[in-house]
Amino acid sequence: MNEQFPSVLLEKAVGEFAKLPGIGRKTALRLVLHLLRQDTATVEAFGHAMITLKHEVKYCQVCHNISDTETCRICANPHRDHSVICVVENVRDVMAVEATQQYTGLYHVLGGVISPMDGIGPNDLQINSLIERVKTGNINEVILALSTTMEGDTTNFYIYRKLEEFNVKLSVIARGISVGDELEYADEVTLGRSIVNRTPFNGTV
Amino acid sequence: MNEQFPSVLLEKAVGEFAKLPGIGRKTALRLVLHLLRQDTATVEAFGHAMITLKHEVKYCQVCHNISDTETCRICANPHRDHSVICVVENVRDVMAVEATQQYTGLYHVLGGVISPMDGIGPNDLQINSLIERVKTGNINEVILALSTTMEGDTTNFYIYRKLEEFNVKLSVIARGISVGDELEYADEVTLGRSIVNRTPFNGTV
Repeated sequence: MNEQFPSVLLEKAVGEFAKLPGIGRKTALRLVLHLLRQDTATVEAFGHAMITLKHEVKYCQVCHNISDTETCRICANPHRDHSVICVVENVRDVMAVEATQQYTGLYHVLGGVISPMDGIGPNDLQINSLIERVKTGNINEVILALSTTMEGDTTNFYIYRKLEEFNVKLSVIARGISVGDELEYADEVTLGRSIVNRTPFNGTV
Repeated sequence: MNEQFPSVLLEKAVGEFAKLPGIGRKTALRLVLHLLRQDTATVEAFGHAMITLKHEVKYCQVCHNISDTETCRICANPHRDHSVICVVENVRDVMAVEATQQYTGLYHVLGGVISPMDGIGPNDLQINSLIERVKTGNINEVILALSTTMEGDTTNFYIYRKLEEFNVKLSVIARGISVGDELEYADEVTLGRSIVNRTPFNGTV
């Protein structure tokens, strides 16, 4: 559609939406016209929710997760295991691990992985503060839960080298075929790993 | 993902995005986290663009198109043909027709089509104001450019009955096979119409 906006304000709002990843200008127009049909209070709630979040969001001073308070809910929870740290890339990964309900320790949000291609080095990530947490001596285990990519593996290795001098157990989340997957469709690297890292079987998985 | 938001503000912003049509909660989270990575000015521009649009948008008093002024740019343009009205459903249709650069008349935005299933009757649409415009006697032609659906056809017929007492030419946009389409893939109703409504050929289409 060759764009002939009937209103400058409309064009501006569409332009702002179209800056979002995965939102083209046609979708942006559809979303803006949808919002325009809602009442003023709804539109204000939409606009202000985002602005308020940006102004008031905090990052946990311990694990760097998004938080409403100086220390996040997870780090402040005395019922969680404060001797285990799960290292993840971002907030979405924290939410994904939390959703499994299989983990009761703390987190450490790196903010990404080492990626020379993107100009991201160790100092751009929260690696030093991870080392500081381990240095306190209160940590028994650090679980590395980064992406299984070249960059994730590089970051795993970097953290391993930094932490090997401390008396801390280092582990990496299991890599193998997905639950529900059929063997014939698994790629050979994944299937190979799952054979090498096979686990003892006592009648139930 | 079972949702365990680390922040109430984040959850609220995601909730607002997820109200938009076609945006699920995972996409909403992705969009909100993307905005959160932008600087404050960008986020404020995003939020305020929508709120400002809602507060300040006007609807043209002549054709009901979205406008920044009491009378829209198209209706206020003396170079356009003020004796022809193209009747469309919504703003996006105005933009679609404008994009063709084949039309120099005015518009009339109905705000929808008659649809008893959705509880939309003639009085919910801008049909009376269309009749008023025709009544002035300054209109030579009304072009009906509504959807080629049952509801669009019903609305066309309703407008036809309302306008037949006036001395105004009524036409409907041509229905036939799309430019670039192959005949064998066209549906039979469309192909049938395009044969019945064939146009004289003088060597060039």
